Amino acid sequence: MNRIKCIVSYDGSKFHGFQVQNKLRTVQGEIQKAIHNICKDEEIVIHASGRTDAKVHGRKQVFHFDTKRDMPEKQWKRAINHFLPNDIYILDSFLVDDDFHSRYSATKKEYHYLLSMNEYSPFETNYIYQYGKSLDIKAMKEAAKIFIGEHNFASFCAIDPYGNTIRTLYHLDIIEKNGIVTFKLIGNGFRRYMVRHIVGGLIQVGAHRIDKAKLEELLESKGEKKCLFKAKPQGLYLHEVFYE
Amino acid sequence: MNRIKCIVSYDGSKFHGFQVQNKLRTVQGEIQKAIHNICKDEEIVIHASGRTDAKVHGRKQVFHFDTKRDMPEKQWKRAINHFLPNDIYILDSFLVDDDFHSRYSATKKEYHYLLSMNEYSPFETNYIYQYGKSLDIKAMKEAAKIFIGEHNFASFCAIDPYGNTIRTLYHLDIIEKNGIVTFKLIGNGFRRYMVRHIVGGLIQVGAHRIDKAKLEELLESKGEKKCLFKAKPQGLYLHEVFYE
Repeated sequence: MNRIKCIVSYDGSKFHGFQVQNKLRTVQGEIQKAIHNICKDEEIVIHASGRTDAKVHGRKQVFHFDTKRDMPEKQWKRAINHFLPNDIYILDSFLVDDDFHSRYSATKKEYHYLLSMNEYSPFETNYIYQYGKSLDIKAMKEAAKIFIGEHNFASFCAIDPYGNTIRTLYHLDIIEKNGIVTFKLIGNGFRRYMVRHIVGGLIQVGAHRIDKAKLEELLESKGEKKCLFKAKPQGLYLHEVFYE
Repeated sequence: MNRIKCIVSYDGSKFHGFQVQNKLRTVQGEIQKAIHNICKDEEIVIHASGRTDAKVHGRKQVFHFDTKRDMPEKQWKRAINHFLPNDIYILDSFLVDDDFHSRYSATKKEYHYLLSMNEYSPFETNYIYQYGKSLDIKAMKEAAKIFIGEHNFASFCAIDPYGNTIRTLYHLDIIEKNGIVTFKLIGNGFRRYMVRHIVGGLIQVGAHRIDKAKLEELLESKGEKKCLFKAKPQGLYLHEVFYE
């Protein structure tokens, strides 16, 4: 068996998320269909570094799969792309060791969230959250500091009483250029909705609806007081997945 | 009666062009539906500066319509936007004189065509022509000069034996930045497919498949020898319409 690692970029606009769902159009479903055209006698299941939700984009998402088929590693890129729809594109392909796993070998992940303070644009609506008002960038940058380091993010992710909600956030940078705000988050892992809740909370600070202390109170309550603000999926990008 | 002028921006990806067509989703159809929600007892038809084809985008397209309804001019923008789908957006609205006509009063139009020489991007596929190879920008800039001024563009537009194909092109600039090539054309008017044929011909020059002299020969044949290269609609933007 050969283990193939692929780096994939996708526009999440027209997908019901990454993970296969019966009859719905998903990124995983489309990729598996494409691979099936190449490996017709195998039932291939791909394993991604993690799921992304409906409308969330992938820039350098990673997945792997096992196949009996022998091919030069770079030819997988070309072959799979040939069968993919135009909103998914394999950027690179590698033959990797059997002990590589897209999800378990990942050490860090980087997410970006894009928000526009400018007037509504019909071209950006699926790609940048059309907030349309000014935000206090300085206040958001100051409040962002509370998330850095190891924390129990229970107040900032989907409710799951059994999950481990402790994660380490290494970076949370906020960059504004021409009215577009980019939130860049790097951490050892992210729970479902975690980026959207953190960004949602920061937007509330930027709009002067809550202050840094209130945000910190939510974080320190470790799930007792939930962050009720969740930024829209359209502005979210799984930017990159890092391995040793 | 009041004549209302609107400036509208639309992502052409999911439209069968601008002009109303029975049962198909068009920009004009969606705008008229939105206006019908405001002026329920009137049958309002909008008049645009010109049509755009399927998948072609509008940045500052202009249209006007007549209505009995009285409203402060800027409120039309807000009211129509309220009923529009998210891929169309009114940028501004004005109350204008009865002798203003979106099409007949227009003196100049500016079109942009975007092409990428970079690797394929699933995010750009509806917005920038994914050419994916290098082009000789210098050769294209040099060849572009032949189109400047008044010419019979019959070889560079859709076949129409009765139409007047004489137009004046004031500017044709080609700008390259980070592998994205922008063709900017300003003229007193453009026939159907004219921008796409001019850009298509220039791409052939940039790819060294034909030279400037050959392109000039096509232009000077005044329709006898047609330019067979037509750039895809996805990269084309009606950028702006100018009035006195």
